[in-house]
Amino acid sequence: MSPIAPTPEPPYYAVIFTSMLRPGKLEEYAPLAAELLELARAHEGFLGRETSPRDEQGMGLGLSYWRDLESIQAWKEDIKHMAAQRKGRAQWFSEYKVRVALVQRDYAFVA
Amino acid sequence: MSPIAPTPEPPYYAVIFTSMLRPGKLEEYAPLAAELLELARAHEGFLGRETSPRDEQGMGLGLSYWRDLESIQAWKEDIKHMAAQRKGRAQWFSEYKVRVALVQRDYAFVA
Repeated sequence: MSPIAPTPEPPYYAVIFTSMLRPGKLEEYAPLAAELLELARAHEGFLGRETSPRDEQGMGLGLSYWRDLESIQAWKEDIKHMAAQRKGRAQWFSEYKVRVALVQRDYAFVA
Repeated sequence: MSPIAPTPEPPYYAVIFTSMLRPGKLEEYAPLAAELLELARAHEGFLGRETSPRDEQGMGLGLSYWRDLESIQAWKEDIKHMAAQRKGRAQWFSEYKVRVALVQRDYAFVA
């Protein structure tokens, strides 16, 4: 299976999550991140996600794709996700940025 | 220095590049990717970039941020970048997807 998210024709939304994990937190964070992904998957409007491993400084990128702003808002307000967000700020991340972006066009290459 | 790109207030654009490198190509591709980044940096309208390491399958995420669609188009048509795109399809990537997205809002956390 391709690791590239099977998103539909644009327009749809991307949530870009760029984060710096605090030193030594990866072991604790990784299973929770996997659990959060399963939670997101179950949400109405979730279209897919792409992540890649953190670099040696702890920096990671996570993309999730959504049908519309309403589904992003509902995910943001999910009670387990909100708890994770609080814990993220208190314990896991030294810094992060969330960007909400409307995907206007896309193009693909397959060899 | 924070690895999170110091983008201005939205709106601005993100180009999301999700790619699968063919097996054994990382050594050849990595210096060219670094060279391409320097080339992008010199372009009018370039606001920053974020990348993280490829996973063991060769999947990688690269984000670049741009002031407007015109600057993205000019970068897409850069002669060295076009040569790299051709080489990318012929030699480096088994698959990729490019998504052009308008960042409508963002929010940041710093501990």
